[in-house]
Amino acid sequence: MEYKYLKNNIDHTDIKYMSPKERDILCSELRDKIIKTVACNGGHLASNLGVVELTVALLSVFDPGKDKIVLDVGHQSYAYKLLTGRFDRFDTLRKQGGVSGFPRRSESRFDVFDTGHSSTSISAALGMARARDLNRDDSYVVAVIGDGAMTGGMSYEAINDLGHSRKQMIVILNDNEMSIDKNVGGMSKYLKELRISKGYISAKQNTASFLQKIPLIGNGIIKGIKKIKTFFRFLVNKQQPSMFEDLGLVYYGPVDGHDHEALIKALNAVKDIKDPVLLHICTKKGKGYKYAEESPSDYHGVGPFDIDKGVIKAVSASYTHAFSGAVVEVASKNKRVVAISAAMAQGTGLETFSMKFPDRFFDCGIAEEHAVTMAAGMSVSGYIPVVAIYSSFLQRAYDQIIHDVCFMNNHVVFAIDRSGFVGADGHTHNGLLDISYLNSMPGMTVLSPRDYRELKFSMDYAVNRCEGPCAVRYPRGNCPYDAKDFLCDSVDDITRPHLVIDDGSDYALISFGVISAQAYNAVQLLRNKGLKGRLIVLTVIRPIPYSELKPLLSGIKDTFTLEDGYISGGFGENFSSLAEENGITSSVHPIAVRDQMIRAASIQSQYEQAGIDSESVAGYITRKLSI
Amino acid sequence: MEYKYLKNNIDHTDIKYMSPKERDILCSELRDKIIKTVACNGGHLASNLGVVELTVALLSVFDPGKDKIVLDVGHQSYAYKLLTGRFDRFDTLRKQGGVSGFPRRSESRFDVFDTGHSSTSISAALGMARARDLNRDDSYVVAVIGDGAMTGGMSYEAINDLGHSRKQMIVILNDNEMSIDKNVGGMSKYLKELRISKGYISAKQNTASFLQKIPLIGNGIIKGIKKIKTFFRFLVNKQQPSMFEDLGLVYYGPVDGHDHEALIKALNAVKDIKDPVLLHICTKKGKGYKYAEESPSDYHGVGPFDIDKGVIKAVSASYTHAFSGAVVEVASKNKRVVAISAAMAQGTGLETFSMKFPDRFFDCGIAEEHAVTMAAGMSVSGYIPVVAIYSSFLQRAYDQIIHDVCFMNNHVVFAIDRSGFVGADGHTHNGLLDISYLNSMPGMTVLSPRDYRELKFSMDYAVNRCEGPCAVRYPRGNCPYDAKDFLCDSVDDITRPHLVIDDGSDYALISFGVISAQAYNAVQLLRNKGLKGRLIVLTVIRPIPYSELKPLLSGIKDTFTLEDGYISGGFGENFSSLAEENGITSSVHPIAVRDQMIRAASIQSQYEQAGIDSESVAGYITRKLSI
Repeated sequence: MEYKYLKNNIDHTDIKYMSPKERDILCSELRDKIIKTVACNGGHLASNLGVVELTVALLSVFDPGKDKIVLDVGHQSYAYKLLTGRFDRFDTLRKQGGVSGFPRRSESRFDVFDTGHSSTSISAALGMARARDLNRDDSYVVAVIGDGAMTGGMSYEAINDLGHSRKQMIVILNDNEMSIDKNVGGMSKYLKELRISKGYISAKQNTASFLQKIPLIGNGIIKGIKKIKTFFRFLVNKQQPSMFEDLGLVYYGPVDGHDHEALIKALNAVKDIKDPVLLHICTKKGKGYKYAEESPSDYHGVGPFDIDKGVIKAVSASYTHAFSGAVVEVASKNKRVVAISAAMAQGTGLETFSMKFPDRFFDCGIAEEHAVTMAAGMSVSGYIPVVAIYSSFLQRAYDQIIHDVCFMNNHVVFAIDRSGFVGADGHTHNGLLDISYLNSMPGMTVLSPRDYRELKFSMDYAVNRCEGPCAVRYPRGNCPYDAKDFLCDSVDDITRPHLVIDDGSDYALISFGVISAQAYNAVQLLRNKGLKGRLIVLTVIRPIPYSELKPLLSGIKDTFTLEDGYISGGFGENFSSLAEENGITSSVHPIAVRDQMIRAASIQSQYEQAGIDSESVAGYITRKLSI
Repeated sequence: MEYKYLKNNIDHTDIKYMSPKERDILCSELRDKIIKTVACNGGHLASNLGVVELTVALLSVFDPGKDKIVLDVGHQSYAYKLLTGRFDRFDTLRKQGGVSGFPRRSESRFDVFDTGHSSTSISAALGMARARDLNRDDSYVVAVIGDGAMTGGMSYEAINDLGHSRKQMIVILNDNEMSIDKNVGGMSKYLKELRISKGYISAKQNTASFLQKIPLIGNGIIKGIKKIKTFFRFLVNKQQPSMFEDLGLVYYGPVDGHDHEALIKALNAVKDIKDPVLLHICTKKGKGYKYAEESPSDYHGVGPFDIDKGVIKAVSASYTHAFSGAVVEVASKNKRVVAISAAMAQGTGLETFSMKFPDRFFDCGIAEEHAVTMAAGMSVSGYIPVVAIYSSFLQRAYDQIIHDVCFMNNHVVFAIDRSGFVGADGHTHNGLLDISYLNSMPGMTVLSPRDYRELKFSMDYAVNRCEGPCAVRYPRGNCPYDAKDFLCDSVDDITRPHLVIDDGSDYALISFGVISAQAYNAVQLLRNKGLKGRLIVLTVIRPIPYSELKPLLSGIKDTFTLEDGYISGGFGENFSSLAEENGITSSVHPIAVRDQMIRAASIQSQYEQAGIDSESVAGYITRKLSI
């Protein structure tokens, strides 16, 4: 497809003065570019295809250089990026040093707020609106948020504050559930046109200001008129608007989110309303690419694929897949096991569980805080909840894990996928904090299995052996170890340290989880340099099996630790202070991620940037031993 | 007052069969006991006085041994405790080993879920309701939540899930704002009686089931009837109910929360509804004690006071007070400073700021997540937000600090009150995690001033010198140092380590903040034992001023660190790995709180239990040096 309008130096004012037909073509070009790029690089497809018209409409009405457009989660930013100066380097999408898959202030002045995690946009936008009013400037502030992200509690916290503050601001609710009742569709469309036309709004405002001039009686009449109007809307719109109106927002919609002209009309109609506005638009995820339209959840985040054939859904070996099987297995044997997801049944591998044990599966929505405390409620009632949430998203429930799980010593199992580096999704999605935050929580047991078999035993241990809170962390992707290289033959094996290599006593290296493969290679590299040491691999990393580790370190002057998380509060530091406390003679040298932010790249490259790949580890150990 | 009914072995069935008059007397006795105990021990007064009738009603209708009553936040649990076996030891309220000021499972089987932080009750209760249904038992589940806690996002996450799940459960919304409009009061009362009478509910249910038997037409008619009923309620109740109904809950109320008979009637009316119910009750904080009724926020949490005179509000020296002055001072000089609170303007000392700079002050409600991201939105717009939130409550915004502040390197200042031990409020309110969680956040600067002057300089530094995220942590209460003992004469002083005592080189001890007073005393104790060392006090604890610390440690074999937080990821461990990395020759021994939970007691006793008081520190150092 040759592009007529889509080019790098496209000016948003060009879009403003396009004809509807030209905008149609532009939308097709955007879809073409997005599909081709994602097919090549992987990325978020369905969500990006859903907002093409919305993006064109936003840039037809607002000035991205002056106005603030905040994209919630940010996996719908591709069209926006293509239209704000990133067309010519869009082929670098999600590559190291390339265009990020999410809005990034460091990438463009048109990206006003970094996103990646859900439900932050209204809060950020309200901050911008307040700043604007303090500055007395006249920019517009817009937050674009999906109905999924709307289930996250902080959206409500923000709407509650926004409604009270009465700041001028637009929240665009991108509703891609297509849940508008057909029974009232005709009436709804008619009223929608009335509501979003400029005439209607002006009329409403004029009436109010006119009536207010009549003393005393005025307000009562306005109240009456508003009540009738609200009731009218209430009857036809199945009460949905009233919730937002209760909270102080002016509701407009629903608008067809694939009709750019309707969207432009709606945005022009609401943009100068002095109160906060919720504009409800309806879109279809995956719009314009039939495979994605048919099964949008399969096309949420995808790897490279063939455009004609679509994504080939193959169940390949991965830690997620291993967890999926393990949790079903423990639940088959132990009837007290229930599983909890925060809107990620597919991503976490809980889909199989949900089909096998529908009564024992609970999807709480994008609501990690609630999911964890709900699990605690089930735990005090005698159940063993397995809460499966990605590492970086579980950060949302930090307080709930402490307050509602650890402090009561509730037996809740956290299955933490995407721990460590995640690759192309970048720094907002890296799970580099879990070891550190779990290690400081009273009574928390932490397991970090290195392969699928260890993961299976870890789930068994967490469910059937542990009595309090227990976390099993495992990475994105597949296991670097050969299936025959397993260390564990039973659940009991995972509680003890494994002396994997015993070359000599020049040094010892302790590691665990997927990163232990880098440790393994580092020991080979050191052997080639004539340095002979011991490699010890753990599964249970908290509490540290100190008494069993100590004899393995006898005669060792320098002990190194390697982990895929931040150094502060990690395994290395914990082991170091424990060793110090217990008078171990070996010096402990933690190797971990330093105080830095590592952006999108291949996981191997992320290891290298962090200095935790085998070469860097071998180099570090060599230098330390030569001092 | 001699108690006729209130006694230790009161049985909840006794309450059930009391006459209204007897319940009146019981309520008076409960109030008397609560006021007397709080006047003596300190505690939460206004909130506990507000729910006396509700508690009596709950225990008249439900069986606390079988049914589950979850009290949100838990600072309204006193009457419940007095009526469920803790009357005779109620004098130990908030004392070490005594009755906790919050529900505690470890204290009584009638306390089904520990609380302390806000907005957890609906989540926990939903977990219990799901467990009940899996068990097929017939217990009732009730969550009691205030309108304040309802502003916390996780309440909405829970209601969203609850409405969808359609589990039988009662949410009691304890609305103490007294915001019912008098204009519609008469009609409202009438309708309320209709709605909550058993007859009305039965009639409604019968009608529905009768009509459903007529095929096809049935559902449409039911829908129509429901719509008319909803509209009727909608007109008279200012739309408030509709929000909860939109989310799938049956709304009942409002009910006078000080009329125990009305409450009993309401609870009996709704308890067998198979859907989730929101029962809206209206109460007055401080009810029955005139001083508390007049100014409930002054009687939220109080120290001991004279019942006849009330609490004497005296502005005494405290870290909070020092912050209050410091933030006003920086804001007077720097117009870009704005202040943000999460419903704690008074508690955090931001009240003065809010009066002096009303346009630059934002109270976000009990909504820490939103507050932090809103601050980030203001930060990217050129303002410098000071976010003042207690240490343990800021845990709620852990992810937002990382994702919305640190990753964009936004200049947001966190003023963290109640860091370290807090005394009588107990373990849920201790701020023992802040050092650890802040230390692992990329780019975060952390300051821990030891006295008021340092706090003032710290605020100046955080606002005017820092460029990225910066946290200033300070404890509850007042400074143990004499005003003339200050170490700092200017802002520049706080960036360097202070060699406070230089007795000799047997050891070095590094500390900071309020706990440095224990370090100071420990050094005196060690001096008396003939051990002579150095005491170094820091203010900026991250990044660690290593290059300036190193010369101060020359010739030292053993360096100890002392902090009032968990050891994992604390200053000690960070310093230890930094020292190791940089080849320092001194052994580093962190002294900090171990993996334990320390309950309510005096702060000094909490230090002792944690082993961070001066005696314990001196003992630890002596033992280590003798090895």
